[in-house]
Amino acid sequence: MIADSSAWLLLCRTVRFGDTDAAGVMHFHQLLRWCHEAYEESLERFGLAAGDVFPRPGERPAVALPIVHCSADFLAPLACGDPLAIQLDPRRLDPGSFEVHYGFRLGDKQVARGLTRHLAISADTRQRCPLPAAIQRWLEASSLGQGVQPL
Amino acid sequence: MIADSSAWLLLCRTVRFGDTDAAGVMHFHQLLRWCHEAYEESLERFGLAAGDVFPRPGERPAVALPIVHCSADFLAPLACGDPLAIQLDPRRLDPGSFEVHYGFRLGDKQVARGLTRHLAISADTRQRCPLPAAIQRWLEASSLGQGVQPL
Amino acid sequence: MIADSSAWLLLCRTVRFGDTDAAGVMHFHQLLRWCHEAYEESLERFGLAAGDVFPRPGERPAVALPIVHCSADFLAPLACGDPLAIQLDPRRLDPGSFEVHYGFRLGDKQVARGLTRHLAISADTRQRCPLPAAIQRWLEASSLGQGVQPL
Amino acid sequence: MIADSSAWLLLCRTVRFGDTDAAGVMHFHQLLRWCHEAYEESLERFGLAAGDVFPRPGERPAVALPIVHCSADFLAPLACGDPLAIQLDPRRLDPGSFEVHYGFRLGDKQVARGLTRHLAISADTRQRCPLPAAIQRWLEASSLGQGVQPL
Repeated sequence: MIADSSAWLLLCRTVRFGDTDAAGVMHFHQLLRWCHEAYEESLERFGLAAGDVFPRPGERPAVALPIVHCSADFLAPLACGDPLAIQLDPRRLDPGSFEVHYGFRLGDKQVARGLTRHLAISADTRQRCPLPAAIQRWLEASSLGQGVQPL
Repeated sequence: MIADSSAWLLLCRTVRFGDTDAAGVMHFHQLLRWCHEAYEESLERFGLAAGDVFPRPGERPAVALPIVHCSADFLAPLACGDPLAIQLDPRRLDPGSFEVHYGFRLGDKQVARGLTRHLAISADTRQRCPLPAAIQRWLEASSLGQGVQPL
Repeated sequence: MIADSSAWLLLCRTVRFGDTDAAGVMHFHQLLRWCHEAYEESLERFGLAAGDVFPRPGERPAVALPIVHCSADFLAPLACGDPLAIQLDPRRLDPGSFEVHYGFRLGDKQVARGLTRHLAISADTRQRCPLPAAIQRWLEASSLGQGVQPL
Repeated sequence: MIADSSAWLLLCRTVRFGDTDAAGVMHFHQLLRWCHEAYEESLERFGLAAGDVFPRPGERPAVALPIVHCSADFLAPLACGDPLAIQLDPRRLDPGSFEVHYGFRLGDKQVARGLTRHLAISADTRQRCPLPAAIQRWLEASSLGQGVQPL
């Protein structure tokens, strides 16, 4: 069974040159790209196939999970080559939506926070609907694991 | 003098193919890129040179204006080719910081909102400092214009 | 009565802060994004609807035009705020493919070149097919205009 | 001793949702971002610090390595979740420049190729100069390893 949520909720990423701007540090909106890529990597490590959650040519999941809100806080500048640890904290909000909170650390220091809020909608009707079972499993397992793996 | 703030606070942008993802609509974090580009275009239309605000090779403004917080709300899906109107609403928060609120409309419909919060810091000492005079002029003129040009 | 191809083949773009990297100048692959956005803007100015060429939710053109090759040459560094002129030179290669050559100038100086090569394929069968009539009109009009509007 | 160049020349990457466009597959210019990130990861795995090659705040390497040319070939569509293997093939061109060739495979199938060409210039004078010693070591070790690790 899944014993340790750090396997899919604690990820690594290095700041790349193309993520920076002429001020010499990470350009702000790249962080939200990193958040989404961390969310995708987390689902993948948990064992979900990309095609279960995201559209692929000829495969469209019955439920889409568009982002309806996002935010980020930038606590310290990040430079090319900085090795970051990303802690994900997914939280079910109601039967049809969830949030992911993302904490970014460089060594012992918290350097940024991110948030994405997702809504389940039926791909056919575009109406709100319950979260897919696979996402519910990930949310539940993540929630159980959190007692053991606080940020 | 400056009679109509809509000249620099009401901008246009078309959703491009590379802004979309496999769900067929704008990928969420592109909106924050659009926000920053709208902020830059607004300063430019107001009459500020890029080099007064942003670093260029061999020219570094004395005051940097890093983003310390951003957020966005997504109210409707946006498709390739959609012509958007972007209304900027810049607000001074205190002598050393400001926010820009961005409203995105497609026709009569509000489709998204964005927010960036900027802090003035001395490029040399990295300590907080007053906003540059040029940004203060833009904030004041924008504030005056707003009575006349509400969203 | 398209009299002057410069209306859809000569475009403007300003280098934005997020296009730069920590070396202080435009990060190389942004140029290829600019090329594609210039191609889209050119089609739009010529009078084609985005939905005629690019997929939109619920509308998929019968012919897709994927890029099979691209290249770029970087002749001079580009800084935030630089106002660029982009000259497009579209060329039909055969009944089922075309190239667009892009020349970027800053004032009198050529600063970069780009190229995208596009193949027509049937959206259904994924097999090669003739170019859509709308694209053929754009290619022909662009070719006629070129005698009058050389780079 | 560096025994096996596959440790720094054979990298992995998964296609992410934000890399795709409304045609359902990877948007072309993302591949060039992946190329540069693979180049950075290769240098890192070889043992070079980012600050030896790329500018960081307050640290500017004596020699910059701007890209003067790039190209890419797209042989097959790439979908969200596709796990790619990237094979790098760095080649010294002359004492002041080098190329990196990138081969992308999905399983046994070659799906794309990329190329970046880099020129050494003095950060101070902006004149051409010899490649930095660290890059020369990487090029030499990569060249030796290639006999053992062909694509």
